[in-house]
Amino acid sequence: MSSDFPQWASALATRMESTLERLLPRADIAPQRLHDAMRYAVLGGGKRIRPLLAFAAGEVAEADANRVAIAAAAVELIHAYSLVHDDLPCMDDDDLRRGKPTCHVEYDEATALLVGDSLQTLAFQLLAEHRLADDAALQLDMVRILAVASGSRGMAGGQAIDLASVGAELSLPELEFMHIHKTGALIRAAVQLGALCGRPLAAAETEALQRYAKSIGLAFQVVDDILDVESTTATLGKTAGKDAEDNKPTYVTILGVAAAKAKAAELHRDALDAVAVFGDRAQRLREIADFITQRKF
Amino acid sequence: MSSDFPQWASALATRMESTLERLLPRADIAPQRLHDAMRYAVLGGGKRIRPLLAFAAGEVAEADANRVAIAAAAVELIHAYSLVHDDLPCMDDDDLRRGKPTCHVEYDEATALLVGDSLQTLAFQLLAEHRLADDAALQLDMVRILAVASGSRGMAGGQAIDLASVGAELSLPELEFMHIHKTGALIRAAVQLGALCGRPLAAAETEALQRYAKSIGLAFQVVDDILDVESTTATLGKTAGKDAEDNKPTYVTILGVAAAKAKAAELHRDALDAVAVFGDRAQRLREIADFITQRKF
Repeated sequence: MSSDFPQWASALATRMESTLERLLPRADIAPQRLHDAMRYAVLGGGKRIRPLLAFAAGEVAEADANRVAIAAAAVELIHAYSLVHDDLPCMDDDDLRRGKPTCHVEYDEATALLVGDSLQTLAFQLLAEHRLADDAALQLDMVRILAVASGSRGMAGGQAIDLASVGAELSLPELEFMHIHKTGALIRAAVQLGALCGRPLAAAETEALQRYAKSIGLAFQVVDDILDVESTTATLGKTAGKDAEDNKPTYVTILGVAAAKAKAAELHRDALDAVAVFGDRAQRLREIADFITQRKF
Repeated sequence: MSSDFPQWASALATRMESTLERLLPRADIAPQRLHDAMRYAVLGGGKRIRPLLAFAAGEVAEADANRVAIAAAAVELIHAYSLVHDDLPCMDDDDLRRGKPTCHVEYDEATALLVGDSLQTLAFQLLAEHRLADDAALQLDMVRILAVASGSRGMAGGQAIDLASVGAELSLPELEFMHIHKTGALIRAAVQLGALCGRPLAAAETEALQRYAKSIGLAFQVVDDILDVESTTATLGKTAGKDAEDNKPTYVTILGVAAAKAKAAELHRDALDAVAVFGDRAQRLREIADFITQRKF
């Protein structure tokens, strides 16, 4: 890993924080409680992996960082909305997120429901009201990509499959199908949107980015499953051991820890192979792949 | 009311049903239960008032009806998502909608949550993936308009204000502020989007449509409040007397039935005045105003 990756990632996380801070409705605008809760759910936490991926993909396409910041914020708002709804009692019923009480615990369930709803809406509003591409038709395509990645055949569909799989015996392909939707779709969208903020790429280049994003999305999930059994609640900032407690199928329950680690390493290699074609321009993408595979939280 | 209005409205409701039927994911595509529940929540019911308004506004701007149908479907999906979430136990906790069990009763809460989430996403996907305007920048503006109308400073914000007002004493201006957001914003968006599918309107014409939409949106709500006390569950297809039971402030609780009816009549006149400028092209808008004020369900 290049020596300045932590600085780069940390500077971008700070930048995203101030971008999101500015784009979210102020807490003193009516309805105040809703706006306050939206800010609570989004600001002050998270690894901001999806924004990092958008920026790194933007570097491949020499994108304007101001444009990438907006696209990355839209993706992060979709991610934040999904966490708020996923933590609700009727879903995963979790009390802790990013080391803080979850939104429905800090506020109430009805507010958390509306927070998730409104964060999703705001994501699409951002993609529509800021200039992100010279060609408006291309920008409309960014809206389409984020919608497809988020909806019933993307992230939300993955959550539905996840719900149906609790207590079920899943095969490895079935587990992979779930994750390709539940977390993978939005990670792929982050990479696509970041790149679309820049100069047009050749079809082979776009395909290379997609291969990278698919591998890194799965690697992220495999590592998540390993951390759930090997880490502590304090380190994770969310409840450790939750998967086993909830009787959820994971890479670890299907493959065991050792084979899950080998799988993560294989996906890591796939991701690096995919972006080799970009040379130096893919440095940040490579570093993120390293980070995702080696992270401890 | 012109003699063929019921036929026009009924033909469009049929057309919307088949448009929505075609645009919703098929129930045999994974995740099947989610897609089945999305179709359950949207198809086979509703007055389709917002689509009718979009078509009527489209006539003013001589819009292509195929384009209006997509824009109207997007608005109707936002409306349907809001009903599914609004009926959840943590919100209004209602069991009956359009004469059928609500989505979380027929399926389960987690599925209903994801249904609402996915219907919202699909609305934005439709506005992005179909050609609705010759100018893509204008179409991007349609995405923005729908997002602003739906989000924390529009419909969802109105629901948050509504939640906060249960058991509270509201003044008439406060009640109006809530409705302008909760139901008014999406009704105004329906009119705007329908018109944007057609030829560009002069600023004064756009403003006239906005005045119409604002009046008709409030009239709709005043009549809703009157029907809640004067009608039966069987006629309404949803639980009658729910507002009083929930101790919700309404036009009837604040003004009384007689003054609420006078208010509805005044708003009806305002709406007709606003669109007088369009002459014959506003015939359907006028008829919808009549229908909304005179409806019994």
